[in-house]
Amino acid sequence: MAPTDRIVTETTFYVRYAETDAMGITHHANYIVYFEEARSHYSRELNADYADFERAGYWLTVAEVHARYIVPTHYAQRIGARCWIEQLRNRALTFGYEIVDAESGTVCVTGYSKHICISHEGRVSLIPKSFYAAMQKGLPQEGNSAS
Amino acid sequence: MAPTDRIVTETTFYVRYAETDAMGITHHANYIVYFEEARSHYSRELNADYADFERAGYWLTVAEVHARYIVPTHYAQRIGARCWIEQLRNRALTFGYEIVDAESGTVCVTGYSKHICISHEGRVSLIPKSFYAAMQKGLPQEGNSAS
Amino acid sequence: MAPTDRIVTETTFYVRYAETDAMGITHHANYIVYFEEARSHYSRELNADYADFERAGYWLTVAEVHARYIVPTHYAQRIGARCWIEQLRNRALTFGYEIVDAESGTVCVTGYSKHICISHEGRVSLIPKSFYAAMQKGLPQEGNSAS
Amino acid sequence: MAPTDRIVTETTFYVRYAETDAMGITHHANYIVYFEEARSHYSRELNADYADFERAGYWLTVAEVHARYIVPTHYAQRIGARCWIEQLRNRALTFGYEIVDAESGTVCVTGYSKHICISHEGRVSLIPKSFYAAMQKGLPQEGNSAS
Repeated sequence: MAPTDRIVTETTFYVRYAETDAMGITHHANYIVYFEEARSHYSRELNADYADFERAGYWLTVAEVHARYIVPTHYAQRIGARCWIEQLRNRALTFGYEIVDAESGTVCVTGYSKHICISHEGRVSLIPKSFYAAMQKGLPQEGNSAS
Repeated sequence: MAPTDRIVTETTFYVRYAETDAMGITHHANYIVYFEEARSHYSRELNADYADFERAGYWLTVAEVHARYIVPTHYAQRIGARCWIEQLRNRALTFGYEIVDAESGTVCVTGYSKHICISHEGRVSLIPKSFYAAMQKGLPQEGNSAS
Repeated sequence: MAPTDRIVTETTFYVRYAETDAMGITHHANYIVYFEEARSHYSRELNADYADFERAGYWLTVAEVHARYIVPTHYAQRIGARCWIEQLRNRALTFGYEIVDAESGTVCVTGYSKHICISHEGRVSLIPKSFYAAMQKGLPQEGNSAS
Repeated sequence: MAPTDRIVTETTFYVRYAETDAMGITHHANYIVYFEEARSHYSRELNADYADFERAGYWLTVAEVHARYIVPTHYAQRIGARCWIEQLRNRALTFGYEIVDAESGTVCVTGYSKHICISHEGRVSLIPKSFYAAMQKGLPQEGNSAS
């Protein structure tokens, strides 16, 4: 379940025909792409554009990805791709995801991905300050937890 | 250039990271998927849902596709996928496309695709009436051409 | 590490250009497709063709998938996709995977996927006997475990 | 039809499940990827590795692509992807393709793609000599045309 103590963004789009398979449903590998689009959207919403991140000389490489498939989705179905931060560290970051039916909110797929910040030279690096600060705004705030 | 004498629809979305390639641009095969999403959107806008089309026992198979690449697009770029009907026949249909930068309107890719209506048994068939009628509304109207 | 007490198959192929991304490496979602191709190959090697499985009225749906990314791969790199059975149950099945550099054997990505057998009507079902028997041949054999 | 007066290469592989769509056939956009893999193979066979081409500071961008769909292909079908050079110019190149059933040789899809050589700075450039010379070997040879 998406957490309630931090920012959860949702971007909606239609399942494309090319994303279906011979079972008549959305092929499972595409949800990994939906997760990615969900975190692109998350970053945009928090004003932490990932394209800038790359231009600064860093990459947020994917170290691990996990998906659990609950309910299949179909061509032309309008779905929501939710994203939040599970954990933020100096050099690493974990995103959580939920893919839902945009109408009913039914959760179809859940997952997470772990990322490590590396420089374009390949060294594990500190997440650039501005990106880190932007991400922090998505986490539970001190003041909030006291209330 | 998109025609001005008929309906042209446009759906907008961001280029996904997964759609880029090692040249740093959107991989050319993805535009074929964008074309498809553009015609899905076109059908939805004209109330001719393609999912219904399939449920009625028909497929609109792709017989031919063509794309011309003019300007590359990049990750996180907001693009518009325009679609219109080039030609509508009893058993066949040609769609035209333009992929543009959503901000500037710069045309990045153009193309077309030809489709044939076949039954699920594999026979070339008449396009179902309701779908055909919906598509006809996208074409130049008698009254219009007189003006 | 791929287990040594059971059958491990390996299919080799080149990374396609379309599978790379703007980081210049193979996009992480493609490994989920490589996993799938690895288990297709596994089934073929054990004479348990999955296309037959579907024609018999069943699907082996994906319930869960996990990937760990260790070393990136690149365009035109020849890779090996290894697959084995982690666990075989009456209605479910877990495959393990290793994606390696085909020359050096360096392990680049590891993962697993869990599957459930459902009928085309959507009911959880027993894995068809012939498929189950074929899969069993990939597991440690009684005689082996005694040695 | 593949020409008989020049080199035509063929690489074979199985249609992947992820490449199918809800029509139960290989999704049409994947053939554009097969074309690309066919020309990667062609270059390898003529000792003109495209990865080297890129490392030399050039890209062979795609200017145009066309595909004609004749017979659908299916999951696990073994197909052959044939490639040859239609036309070789100083700054441009056209490849022709045929996707066939690997067993029967039945032609399923045909197509071509036009490419332009640009430097990494984006300028239209001469195709690097070694690559050009390698490609030339694929064309009809003087001696041959005289016979």
